[in-house]
Amino acid sequence: MTTQPLIAEVVSIGDELLHAGLIDTNSAYLAGQLEQLGIVVQRFTVVGDDPEQLQEAIASACRRADLVVATGGLGPTLDDRTREVVAAALGEPLRFDALSWQEILEWFARFKRPVPDSNRRQAELPQSATALSNSSGTAPGFRVRLHDAELFVLPGVPREMKVMLNEHVLPFVQQLGGLIPTAQACLRVLGPSEALLGERLQQFMQPGRNPLVGITASGGMLSVRLIGTANTKAEAAALCEQTAKELRPLLREWLFAEGLQTVPELVLAALAADKRTIAFAESCTGGLCAARLTDLPGSSAVLQGGIVAYSNAAKHELLGVADDLLEQHGAVSEPVAQAMAEGACQRFLADCAVATTGIAGPSGGSKSKPVGTVCFALATRNPSGSIDAKAWTVRIPDLGRTFVRDRAVFEVWRALLQ
Amino acid sequence: MTTQPLIAEVVSIGDELLHAGLIDTNSAYLAGQLEQLGIVVQRFTVVGDDPEQLQEAIASACRRADLVVATGGLGPTLDDRTREVVAAALGEPLRFDALSWQEILEWFARFKRPVPDSNRRQAELPQSATALSNSSGTAPGFRVRLHDAELFVLPGVPREMKVMLNEHVLPFVQQLGGLIPTAQACLRVLGPSEALLGERLQQFMQPGRNPLVGITASGGMLSVRLIGTANTKAEAAALCEQTAKELRPLLREWLFAEGLQTVPELVLAALAADKRTIAFAESCTGGLCAARLTDLPGSSAVLQGGIVAYSNAAKHELLGVADDLLEQHGAVSEPVAQAMAEGACQRFLADCAVATTGIAGPSGGSKSKPVGTVCFALATRNPSGSIDAKAWTVRIPDLGRTFVRDRAVFEVWRALLQ
Repeated sequence: MTTQPLIAEVVSIGDELLHAGLIDTNSAYLAGQLEQLGIVVQRFTVVGDDPEQLQEAIASACRRADLVVATGGLGPTLDDRTREVVAAALGEPLRFDALSWQEILEWFARFKRPVPDSNRRQAELPQSATALSNSSGTAPGFRVRLHDAELFVLPGVPREMKVMLNEHVLPFVQQLGGLIPTAQACLRVLGPSEALLGERLQQFMQPGRNPLVGITASGGMLSVRLIGTANTKAEAAALCEQTAKELRPLLREWLFAEGLQTVPELVLAALAADKRTIAFAESCTGGLCAARLTDLPGSSAVLQGGIVAYSNAAKHELLGVADDLLEQHGAVSEPVAQAMAEGACQRFLADCAVATTGIAGPSGGSKSKPVGTVCFALATRNPSGSIDAKAWTVRIPDLGRTFVRDRAVFEVWRALLQ
Repeated sequence: MTTQPLIAEVVSIGDELLHAGLIDTNSAYLAGQLEQLGIVVQRFTVVGDDPEQLQEAIASACRRADLVVATGGLGPTLDDRTREVVAAALGEPLRFDALSWQEILEWFARFKRPVPDSNRRQAELPQSATALSNSSGTAPGFRVRLHDAELFVLPGVPREMKVMLNEHVLPFVQQLGGLIPTAQACLRVLGPSEALLGERLQQFMQPGRNPLVGITASGGMLSVRLIGTANTKAEAAALCEQTAKELRPLLREWLFAEGLQTVPELVLAALAADKRTIAFAESCTGGLCAARLTDLPGSSAVLQGGIVAYSNAAKHELLGVADDLLEQHGAVSEPVAQAMAEGACQRFLADCAVATTGIAGPSGGSKSKPVGTVCFALATRNPSGSIDAKAWTVRIPDLGRTFVRDRAVFEVWRALLQ
């Protein structure tokens, strides 16, 4: 194959990204979507609303790449200047786009809200640009050619950006040449350190290998990602599966999930497929398990409910954990976890229930139960109606409260996917 | 004042940031730390390990800025090329730094592990560079002058980067001129659209104004951020307070919180200051309120617990919501929200409790109760022990399930801060 790949860059715009600690997640999302089409993303730039800096950043990206996707700075307020800056880079005036204005008016009518006059600015775009309608917000985007690059400008709100990427950018890009068929696979791993896993997979991680194998860490879970390229998507997928087959024995018992969906999505799908309902009894995870599952549409068919039982009184009163269990073993113990899971399973009339109780830190640790000690239990209702439960303990490295809680939630998902 | 501010850029290096969905959090952290010293950070660049792209990205950052902090690409493996690339940009060879090698050997000795030969690469650095020791990992960093900029190269592992920033970069920068004292303030607003608020604050949002005023939107909440600069930090803070005083009447009843802490942090601090305990009864927010509060250290002193009551059975059984209330008014109604809050307050023996019940979507909406309708209640225990509760309804724009849930959580925080 001699096709030159299409080169893309991403520009994220907004003072809040540079000066207010807001993390740019748009770029990584856009890159992932573009690379699935076989486009090579070579750079992200994050720049503020300062017109001079912004113009230089957009123009130089358009000189280096074939495709540039910029997000942000399309709001109605005067500190949003992306429209003016792109027009200046083109040496063009702004024009008022009547159709965009109509869509903005309709958006406000839908929510029965008055239209602030400042929103008229959002219907302006560079003379030679094509407006891109925004079905989920007031800011239309636009597409324009600048320095031989196709430049797409989308709103910075992630929800609006994602919809507009799907409705406008991806369909346009799919018609272009230079797309190399790709496929992806993802294996989810809990247990080893990133270094240990990297050492074990070393021979797969050489640069230039096809499929490319990479490891990313998030909340204590490691994801082994495969990106394969070939003449067709099916061939690329076959290459990925071939490598996945070699990887599985090396990942051993650490491997707990496969697929491109998020782990909570896989859990919800598995429970829904088995028509199993679930309940949670959460102490150290404090509602995170329930919150992550209920973020998914369709979770109400599966989740009966949950109890966040932080205090011993709550564990006793609401989950029926016997006081002598709490006294004898302490709140962070396998017998208490087991009683919590059983209590949630009974009280919510669920098919299964998971309990977490642990020490998330920064304080509360002891020599025998250091920060990061978390006890889990999974209770399962038998066909006879009786409930079986098993409990286990994980010593999570104390890399901060958020890490311990996130890692504990992944342990819950692991248990539910077994 | 005629001092020119010191201009900085940040470069994050690694294929995993471009191609594997790993989110760059180093840049925002570095920018926050540098801006606290009065340095103006004007751009972040995220680039992979490709030598040509990497060299261009580092060199152009060093042409634009006085100070460049680059992170990543210092590992022992061949795909880490930052050392070679900076040497090439300088037109210099690499030199082997015996002291760095000694520190690497000591690091391995500490963990009683053999030293892989590949680690010798980590002791190499450009001829004119000064090595920076790494007390929390194997990769030393370095500092060098490139195109009149001070270039610091640090490891990409966030934990190591943070230690080296404190030990090497900040002390060096504090000796330089060009540090302008700054102060920040933040006002949190719920209610208006971004456009409406922008219109009201228009005269404050002119570029170049001091303090600079900007609006950012997140999960349905708007933050009005002020950044002031002056001859001293106290003067800058006074400038911010002066503008805040003018803003407050314009923000009216929409303003619900002030301060640089996150909103859950403010809620926790307010409850702790009043020695009030709290419980949650969550339907549509599904555990998010409890999860966000328990993410904070010290929350166990305030949060008694919570119940995620998704099903009507759970609302009845666990919160004592009367069946005829559910039948007569439906689960999404103010009487049911009120009964949920009262039930949680009683069962958890809390001083107050908040309930949420609503339609997060995408399905479940009706003409009278469209998606986004959320009923809330706040129950408060009187000194006599009796419980008062008030309920209210918010029609949240249907901008997706996550938006409705996030916006509902902010409504809970607003109610608790009143």
